[in-house]
Amino acid sequence: MAAADLPFDADRLWADIMALAEITEFSRPYTRRSFSPLFLEGRAWLTRRFEEASLTVRIDAAGNLIGRRDGYEPELGVIAVGSHSDTVPSGGRFDGIAGIAAGLEVARALRDGNAQLDHALEVVDFLAEEPSEYGLSCVGSRGMSGVLTAQMLDMSEPGGETLREALRRVGGNPDRAAEARRADVKAFLELHIEQGAVLESQSLQIGIVTGIVGIRRVEIIFKGAADHAGTTPMLLRRDALVAAANTIVSVRQIAEHLAAEGAGYFVATVGVLIVEPGASNVIPEKCRIVIDIRATDPGLAERFMEAIARESERHAAAARVVRAPLVVLSDGPPAICDPRLRAALGRSAEKLSLRVGDLASGAGHDTAFMTRICPSAMVFVPCRGGKSHTPEEWADKDAIAAGAAVILDTIKSLDQSLPRHAKQNRVTV
Amino acid sequence: MAAADLPFDADRLWADIMALAEITEFSRPYTRRSFSPLFLEGRAWLTRRFEEASLTVRIDAAGNLIGRRDGYEPELGVIAVGSHSDTVPSGGRFDGIAGIAAGLEVARALRDGNAQLDHALEVVDFLAEEPSEYGLSCVGSRGMSGVLTAQMLDMSEPGGETLREALRRVGGNPDRAAEARRADVKAFLELHIEQGAVLESQSLQIGIVTGIVGIRRVEIIFKGAADHAGTTPMLLRRDALVAAANTIVSVRQIAEHLAAEGAGYFVATVGVLIVEPGASNVIPEKCRIVIDIRATDPGLAERFMEAIARESERHAAAARVVRAPLVVLSDGPPAICDPRLRAALGRSAEKLSLRVGDLASGAGHDTAFMTRICPSAMVFVPCRGGKSHTPEEWADKDAIAAGAAVILDTIKSLDQSLPRHAKQNRVTV
Repeated sequence: MAAADLPFDADRLWADIMALAEITEFSRPYTRRSFSPLFLEGRAWLTRRFEEASLTVRIDAAGNLIGRRDGYEPELGVIAVGSHSDTVPSGGRFDGIAGIAAGLEVARALRDGNAQLDHALEVVDFLAEEPSEYGLSCVGSRGMSGVLTAQMLDMSEPGGETLREALRRVGGNPDRAAEARRADVKAFLELHIEQGAVLESQSLQIGIVTGIVGIRRVEIIFKGAADHAGTTPMLLRRDALVAAANTIVSVRQIAEHLAAEGAGYFVATVGVLIVEPGASNVIPEKCRIVIDIRATDPGLAERFMEAIARESERHAAAARVVRAPLVVLSDGPPAICDPRLRAALGRSAEKLSLRVGDLASGAGHDTAFMTRICPSAMVFVPCRGGKSHTPEEWADKDAIAAGAAVILDTIKSLDQSLPRHAKQNRVTV
Repeated sequence: MAAADLPFDADRLWADIMALAEITEFSRPYTRRSFSPLFLEGRAWLTRRFEEASLTVRIDAAGNLIGRRDGYEPELGVIAVGSHSDTVPSGGRFDGIAGIAAGLEVARALRDGNAQLDHALEVVDFLAEEPSEYGLSCVGSRGMSGVLTAQMLDMSEPGGETLREALRRVGGNPDRAAEARRADVKAFLELHIEQGAVLESQSLQIGIVTGIVGIRRVEIIFKGAADHAGTTPMLLRRDALVAAANTIVSVRQIAEHLAAEGAGYFVATVGVLIVEPGASNVIPEKCRIVIDIRATDPGLAERFMEAIARESERHAAAARVVRAPLVVLSDGPPAICDPRLRAALGRSAEKLSLRVGDLASGAGHDTAFMTRICPSAMVFVPCRGGKSHTPEEWADKDAIAAGAAVILDTIKSLDQSLPRHAKQNRVTV
C-alpha cells in the first residue's frame, strides 16, 4: 500500500495541533515553557495520544518523550521522526508542535493501515528545543546525540534550580545522560514551519532543507569621548555612535554581497545597539553592537569576519574612536542535511504532485544535533508572512498535511532503501 | 586709575570658587541643585561675601540674588555682571560659579580702589540656570528678561511642588514675576568656562563669544518588521536600524559640510538611539533617534532640516521601512552678542596683552535671555580638555583671573562709553 493510500487523516492531525495549543499560559498565549507544569501537562496529553496510536511510550535519560512502534526486523534499528512541544514566551501554535503532530499522524496511519515497517518507528518530542530558563537550547537533541555535558547540566535558572535537577523532575536521568546517545537510529526526519517567507514568496508547498546554518554572535565595542554636544566642533569629536553606525551600514553591505554570491545561505544582523550615556546633548562615549552571523558554509562566515574586522577598524579610525578587539560570544557550526534523505523527500513530494524547492534553514533545529549521529533531513512547510515566535504564527491545515504526507511516504520508502548490512550503517560522531 | 592698576586679587577670587565648591552633596561632588537646602546655603554664603564687598543685597521677584553698588549718576542705569551658582548633578566647580566670583571680585576691586562708576554695578546670581527638577532652565534670566510665563511657573517637580511654590521658597515673588523684567540694565557681561576645547587647542586665553546657538531637537522614528534574523534573507528584510544607521552617517556628513562652510557655528549630534525589540536574533522593528542641532544662524539649521528630511526618507525607502514625519521636540532661537560690547572686550583683552579670539557658544547661557533686554556679551576662559558637567571640570587660576580682569577693564570702559541719552538706549523685547 502506497503512503497516499494509507488512512492519513489531515483533520485529526490539525485537531491535535489545536488541542495542544489550548495547553498554554492563559494570560500570554501561546506559552508552554519547557520544564513548567504546563509543559508536563502538554506531555501528559501527548502521552495519551501516543498510547492511543498504539505506540510504546518512554522518556529517555535526556528527557525526550518517545513513542515507539516496533518493526519486523529488530536488527535494522530505528527510523525516527519528531520535533519539540515547548514554546518561546508568547510563541505560536506550530513551531515544533507541527512536527510532533505529523509524526503522531504517521504512526496512526501505519497502525490504521496495518502497515508494519521493517524498521522500528519512533516519534520523538525533544526536550527544551527553545532557549530555556537554564540558558541552554536543544537539551534533548544534545542528549540524544551525545553532546550534553556535565557542565551544561550544572547550568541553573534564576531561581537556582540546576538543569540536572530539572531534568530529573521531568523524568530524565541526568546521572545516565550519556546513555541517551543513540547508535540504532538509521535516519531522522523533522517537519517544521519555515519561520521565513521564502516558500510563501515562491508559492512552494514543500521546502527540503539543504543545511542548517551555523550561528556566530560577535560583539564590537567602540569607545570615544562623552563631550558636550553643543561646544565640541564637528572635527574635534570622538563619537562612538558614528563609528557604530558606519559599521552597521558595512554589515549590511558585506552581508548582501556574500548572500548574492549564491555559494551558500548567508545573513548577518545587528539587532542590539547600546549607546552610552544616551543623552541628546552628550556625544556618545560608548557603543556596543552585537552581530548575529549565520552561514551554511563556514568559509562565508570567515570572510565576513575578516571584512567586518577591517571595516569596523577603518570606521573607528575615521571617527577618532577606539574599537575593542572583536569578541565571539557564541559559535555553533553549521549542519548538512543528508543528500540521500533529501533525494527521498524530493521523490515523495513529486509523487504527491507538490511544488517543492530546496532552501537552507536560517534557524537552529534539533535536526542540527541529530546529523551528528545519523543521516537526517528536514521538511519545511510555509507559514503566513514568514512569522514565528508570535501568537500570529500561522500555517494552513493543507500545508501541514502536505508536509506530513511527504514524511509518511519518505519513511515508507526509506524503510526499504536504507542500507541493511550493519557494516554499511553510517554513524557519524 | 586703569583696571590693571586696581587692587584686583586673583588669590581672593580663586579662594571664593574653592570655598563655594565645598558646599556640595558629600556623596556626589560637586552638586548644589537649584532650590535645594545646599543651594540656599551657598546663597547665604554668597550673600555674606556680597555684603563684605559693600554691595547692597536683594532677591528680585524672579529669585535672582543681586548685589548692587550704586553709581554717581542714578539716571544712567545699571551695568550688570553675573552667572549662576547652581550645578548639574555631579557637576564641576567652575560652570556658573566662576562668573559670579569674577563679578564679586570686580565689585571688591572697585570698592578697594575707591573707584565709583557713573553707572550702578550689579552682580547677579541668576536662579536655576541648569535644567532643574521642575523641567525648566534659566529660570532667573527668563524672569529678568520678561519671558517667565505663568505656564512655566505651574510646572512641577516629581514630588509635586510647583515652580511657583519653589520660587517663593527661595525668596522670589511669583505673583509679581513680571516685575522682575528690567529696563534699566544698559549692558550685561558674563564670564564662563568655555565647556569646549577650542581655546585650549588654539592656545587662547580669552574667547569673545559672537553668539549663542539656537538649539533644536528633532526626533525621527523608523518602522520596519521584527522578522527572524536567521530565516529572513537579506533582500526580504525591513530593518529599521539599517535606515537609522545610514541616517546617522548622513547627519555627520551634512553637519561637517555646513560647519566647514564657515558661515556660522554649526553642530549636529545623535546622542539617543533606541532599538526595538533589541534582541540579537530579531531584525530591528523600530528605531528612534534624537538629533540635537545647534546653529548661530537659523538659515543653517533650516538647510540641515531640509537635507536630513530628504536623506532619511531616501534611507528608509532603501531599507524598505517607513519613516514617520520628523517631530521637533524643542526649538530655541539663537542669540547674538552685542558688537559694541564685543569690541570693548577685545580692546580690554589686548590692553592686558592676552591672546584673544572669537568663538560661538555651543551651549546655552543666561546671556542668551539677557540679549532680549540689553546689549550683552560673554567672555569664555579655557577649561582643561574642554570638560564640563563633571567633577573633572577644571580651569586654571590664571585663566579665570585673566577673564575677570578683562571684565573689570571692560566695565570701566563701558561706564564711560555707553550712550548717555535715554533715547539711544537699546531695549530689544
